[in-house]
Amino acid sequence: MKRAPGEFDIIRDYFASAPQGEGVALGIGDDCALLQVPAQGQLAASVDTLVAGRHFPVVADPAAIAARALRVNLSDLAAMNARPLWFTLALTLPGSDADWLQRFADGLLKTARQFGISLVGGDTTAGPLSITIQVLGQTLKPLCRGGARPGDSVYISGPLGGAAAALPVILGERTAEGETRRRAERAYYYPEPQFATAAAIAGLASSAVDISDGLLADLAHICTASAVSADVYLERLAIAPLARALAGEGALALAAAGGDDYQLCFTVPQARVPALQKLEQEVVAIGTLSPGEAEVRCWQNGRRWRASRTGYRHF
Amino acid sequence: MKRAPGEFDIIRDYFASAPQGEGVALGIGDDCALLQVPAQGQLAASVDTLVAGRHFPVVADPAAIAARALRVNLSDLAAMNARPLWFTLALTLPGSDADWLQRFADGLLKTARQFGISLVGGDTTAGPLSITIQVLGQTLKPLCRGGARPGDSVYISGPLGGAAAALPVILGERTAEGETRRRAERAYYYPEPQFATAAAIAGLASSAVDISDGLLADLAHICTASAVSADVYLERLAIAPLARALAGEGALALAAAGGDDYQLCFTVPQARVPALQKLEQEVVAIGTLSPGEAEVRCWQNGRRWRASRTGYRHF
Repeated sequence: MKRAPGEFDIIRDYFASAPQGEGVALGIGDDCALLQVPAQGQLAASVDTLVAGRHFPVVADPAAIAARALRVNLSDLAAMNARPLWFTLALTLPGSDADWLQRFADGLLKTARQFGISLVGGDTTAGPLSITIQVLGQTLKPLCRGGARPGDSVYISGPLGGAAAALPVILGERTAEGETRRRAERAYYYPEPQFATAAAIAGLASSAVDISDGLLADLAHICTASAVSADVYLERLAIAPLARALAGEGALALAAAGGDDYQLCFTVPQARVPALQKLEQEVVAIGTLSPGEAEVRCWQNGRRWRASRTGYRHF
Repeated sequence: MKRAPGEFDIIRDYFASAPQGEGVALGIGDDCALLQVPAQGQLAASVDTLVAGRHFPVVADPAAIAARALRVNLSDLAAMNARPLWFTLALTLPGSDADWLQRFADGLLKTARQFGISLVGGDTTAGPLSITIQVLGQTLKPLCRGGARPGDSVYISGPLGGAAAALPVILGERTAEGETRRRAERAYYYPEPQFATAAAIAGLASSAVDISDGLLADLAHICTASAVSADVYLERLAIAPLARALAGEGALALAAAGGDDYQLCFTVPQARVPALQKLEQEVVAIGTLSPGEAEVRCWQNGRRWRASRTGYRHF
């Protein structure tokens, strides 16, 4: 019940070239990494697993899988307004495919450099392909889910629906060529963690969440944590051009209930809305909060709209 | 490509009763946990994955699986002389079996309480059963692999071979009843992280590693990291009584090359050996280090002994 032959040194062979970033006293290769934590603020920690055949097709480009695996974890740091510091990788692999591993490692370390986060440890095991990443970051002004109050306005940080519209292309259920295919792959595998928006709204927002499971599902998390209800006016939603291009009339439902966009949903007290409107970031007001039992109600041009699902489910 | 129905709240439903320990400013239920890191020392981080059918039989007692998953990670903290603080859990499950989950959660949280470590976050996904745990701890006097020098003595913290001897029982390849079965399960699923020994040797040892892959394989890690060679005198090894009982003459090979015992292997400069001998901890001198190319040589009663394998492999 041990490592498979050859597996022993995978982390060292493929990932130890990871640059040693800030605060890394001892990186990959010992029983633990040793990290010098900044004195100010708190440490933010999050973990996410991606399973082949569930979160990505087995045949997907390994560099794209790696980028997505790290970016969805970085998005959790962004949603808390935490600065990326370090991450660990637990990689379960069906075999030792040197080419696959090299491309995965290249994609992972490239993404790590882009966002200034250091790989400090890992574990490889033999088994069905899956990737678990835990990220650690520093937060001085954290954004949490539980601070929203009745009367606050609800915002999103950017257009939604693109990743959900891209999914049939990613899965090969729908063909797309050239630029459309590239946009679909970009939307699905390279979501943009919203660090800049999080930093800008940190003194203004009363709560925030990243939209991984779909706007309505993730706004429901804020409502539950804050014990408020929400009214969302769907005609105000910013809909991703890719969603319009691929899904036409269906784009609105994808923007409301599809997941994987990793924009932020956040709430702002009325008194701070003027300050929010002065920010450089373009944010979109989509609704308001009221007292109540954590219900999310949707309206379209004054009429109640019911989602056939509150989160995107597949496989 | 999202969570399966019902899976959404698993972490909250089964694990949120985890006691909120030291330094947990915000626990399970937000995008990240927020942690107040102690001002002194460094943060030690490690990650380990256990895959069903590889690290444990699929039909094993979920409480035992959970205990082993957390204990092998705690052992990495112990090997660095780090005090346990927090951990995250990434759980991939084939389905939502409420009974299995409850027993797993009970076993996990019981183990967490025993070692004073707090579960602060997690992710559940649908897929083949596997468990990834990342542990975080505080270290003031870390024990690393790379500090050993020629002339140092090599020690182990206790008897070896018990877990490797237990493995055929665990796998159902060999029958064992009553007390023998219980001892086998205890040896395999409930390894003891060597925190007390690590604390005692922290000012004395030049290097340390926990024996997860087998004494010879893990001592080779020290030799590689420290650029030394080792001579191990097998007649000095402490062999677990369970290994003798189950494997007879084969016990020595299991103690030398079998894994999963999670005792420490460590090295001590000669000048500090007298201080080591005054410790309460019973430790066992098994060899010496010399200059050289990271070779581990074994001797039995003056004759060279060659392992048929340097680490235990199965499945």
